[in-house]
Amino acid sequence: MEFERPRGTRDFLFEEMRERKMAEDTLRNVFENYGFGEVQTPLFEDLKLFTTKSGEEIVDQLYNFKDKGDRDLALRPEITAPIARLYLNELQKTSKPIKIYYYGSCFRYERPQKGRFRQFWQFGCELIGAKTPEGEAEVIAMCNNAIEELGITTAEFNVNHLGIIRGLFAHFDIDTATQREIMVVIDKGDKDLLKDSLVGENPIIKDKPELNEVLFKLMDMVGDSSIIKDIEELVAPYEETQEALEEFKELVKTLESFQVFNYKLNLGVARGLDYYTGIVFEVYVEGLGAQKQVCGGGTYNLVKLFGGEDVVSTGFALGFDRLMNAIEELNGKVELEPIVNTYVAAISDSTRHNAFSIAQDLRKANIPTEVDLSRKKFKKILAYANKIDVKYTVLVGERDLEEGKVTIKDMLTGEQELVAIDEVVDYIKGKLY
Amino acid sequence: MEFERPRGTRDFLFEEMRERKMAEDTLRNVFENYGFGEVQTPLFEDLKLFTTKSGEEIVDQLYNFKDKGDRDLALRPEITAPIARLYLNELQKTSKPIKIYYYGSCFRYERPQKGRFRQFWQFGCELIGAKTPEGEAEVIAMCNNAIEELGITTAEFNVNHLGIIRGLFAHFDIDTATQREIMVVIDKGDKDLLKDSLVGENPIIKDKPELNEVLFKLMDMVGDSSIIKDIEELVAPYEETQEALEEFKELVKTLESFQVFNYKLNLGVARGLDYYTGIVFEVYVEGLGAQKQVCGGGTYNLVKLFGGEDVVSTGFALGFDRLMNAIEELNGKVELEPIVNTYVAAISDSTRHNAFSIAQDLRKANIPTEVDLSRKKFKKILAYANKIDVKYTVLVGERDLEEGKVTIKDMLTGEQELVAIDEVVDYIKGKLY
Repeated sequence: MEFERPRGTRDFLFEEMRERKMAEDTLRNVFENYGFGEVQTPLFEDLKLFTTKSGEEIVDQLYNFKDKGDRDLALRPEITAPIARLYLNELQKTSKPIKIYYYGSCFRYERPQKGRFRQFWQFGCELIGAKTPEGEAEVIAMCNNAIEELGITTAEFNVNHLGIIRGLFAHFDIDTATQREIMVVIDKGDKDLLKDSLVGENPIIKDKPELNEVLFKLMDMVGDSSIIKDIEELVAPYEETQEALEEFKELVKTLESFQVFNYKLNLGVARGLDYYTGIVFEVYVEGLGAQKQVCGGGTYNLVKLFGGEDVVSTGFALGFDRLMNAIEELNGKVELEPIVNTYVAAISDSTRHNAFSIAQDLRKANIPTEVDLSRKKFKKILAYANKIDVKYTVLVGERDLEEGKVTIKDMLTGEQELVAIDEVVDYIKGKLY
Repeated sequence: MEFERPRGTRDFLFEEMRERKMAEDTLRNVFENYGFGEVQTPLFEDLKLFTTKSGEEIVDQLYNFKDKGDRDLALRPEITAPIARLYLNELQKTSKPIKIYYYGSCFRYERPQKGRFRQFWQFGCELIGAKTPEGEAEVIAMCNNAIEELGITTAEFNVNHLGIIRGLFAHFDIDTATQREIMVVIDKGDKDLLKDSLVGENPIIKDKPELNEVLFKLMDMVGDSSIIKDIEELVAPYEETQEALEEFKELVKTLESFQVFNYKLNLGVARGLDYYTGIVFEVYVEGLGAQKQVCGGGTYNLVKLFGGEDVVSTGFALGFDRLMNAIEELNGKVELEPIVNTYVAAISDSTRHNAFSIAQDLRKANIPTEVDLSRKKFKKILAYANKIDVKYTVLVGERDLEEGKVTIKDMLTGEQELVAIDEVVDYIKGKLY
């Protein structure tokens, strides 16, 4: 075959596309129930937008290129940075909070593997300028609601407040580079590596055994709200952690008011990125193995990083492809009903044009209809109707037509009825609804 | 401002996005009423796919680049070639006719100007493997139906059959390069240029005054089905045109059976591309000036061009951005109703968490709801409710709550009612529906 689609990309055919569209519509509906409005940004942005956010290293994973005007552009690897750019360009004067959602493709250049593609889709949101725990709780509640509406009932929210660990770093006067190194290790979630890096023979931070010990204990704290008291006890000596701890406690209380109960406090959720300032969370769906993380989010200050004012934003991005995978893994393949429910066919050459017109009447009345385009013989008409699984077949024959009528066959019961041409639409509508 | 969106691209904000989404849904609904199913192909393809279709010259107008594996890729400038590629890769064994529709962004590198953007959207279809005039008529009828459903009532279909002009070329033995040259001139639609090129002092074809004369007369033939007899008369001496002429006549008859009456035969529609084999059409909306063409399509054999079998396809692409422009130009800006209809707010600090929970009940019952995230004072609550234009405000106060109740204010009438907390959802549902 001479032409193939580019490596790591996908074509979506009819069935899969319908499933994706249904999930997309479900998510849109939930987001709009929470007062979020959709926006759309370009597929590519200035390369600098993404390197400013994530560092020069990210270029290795980008589709970046020079356009014919010698501009450095990149296909977007995510949509958070474009939304911050959009805010700076268009929304600074809009009264806050601003509630934004988006859905679209992102791109990364990496080795394709199971569940990882070079073009993938993200469905996400940003709540800009709400500084209260209820803002954060609402965003998490919406995320939870959205995942539930997709039929995924085993999602678990793992929530952390990075202010606690940052407070510890501040107390022990740890420089930014070292902080980052530690956060990267935490983010990997590898227990052994973590042990080695904190309390092993050759820890990253050499001269602060107390900090290493506290961090190591903290990383092990995963559980429901009852673990709050353990955390309190552990970090009590460190003044710099107290404000974040209070915020964390209020978030937990607020989450339950927002009817979110499937959460864990997990001090090991790090998200690895410098611009997160408070709450971070990741959502895991059990039973999906390496694909279990379907969402990540938190509170951050990206606008400031891009040279704007100090405005906090809470958001998340759902991995749409992972969600689609989760739906199928958990609930199995669901057979979708065909959209077309009526088939119109002429049973003699002379009535073909009447069949076309009847089909048009049905379609304009919003009844999805096929009409024979291949001049099938009578014998093949019903076989085709069965194949495309319609509910009704309208047979347009010469003799019936002389009386201004057609025969409508109910494909389930096999019953046939003679119906006047100008009553076909109402007849089928009556049967369908 | 340091970060701006790339030149020639757009951000779509809330209102505009909703309008686009509504139009998109309308088009989907119409296409599905005709039995077309949606597919999606990647945003980029091998560069060769587009140069094979349109020649090396197209590279000047493409966003093309090498990926990190040194592959030559291009952001797709249109979706017809990707669909032919998809057919070759995935659908060769599917029984025909195959009915495909698609919606997505395309990209071209050209000077941005009014109504022309570097990222733009196309909504289109392909009917693959139906060789009858009813196939072509159905596609045109669907296009017409779709445009009507968008509220655009002044569209006019300009239809041609390229077989007639190709028959003339064959009769007069004109080589392919010269044919192409003539088609390019025809496609430009410039009367003076056409006159010069055909019957001027220095015509493109020097030694065939009869052909030039016939072509020039043919290009002037624009009108309803009554002009068929003029065409017949003009091309009667040229045997090679007769099959196409018969097809054209049958198409016209079939179009009317499909209830399409707003068409013109226009022998000057050329579409300029070699791979069109039969019918071509363009749709113009009056009153849009240079932006009047909202659609182009026809019957072609792209699969063969890409090395596949000889399979004919009829399709078109609607310029989605032009359609959005047409809707606004023709019908003016339509004020959309806000999606959120209910606002929940605590009127004292102690009831805030109850407000969150009530908001969640409403949202989970599919009632779009905002809840106060900014701890507004009582005085500001109603002002905000008016600003976001909700129908109902649920006021959660301490005293009402003691009786298990809240106050619901109808923002239109100003009436207030005390409602039990567990009846809030039903109360508002009852009012709304």
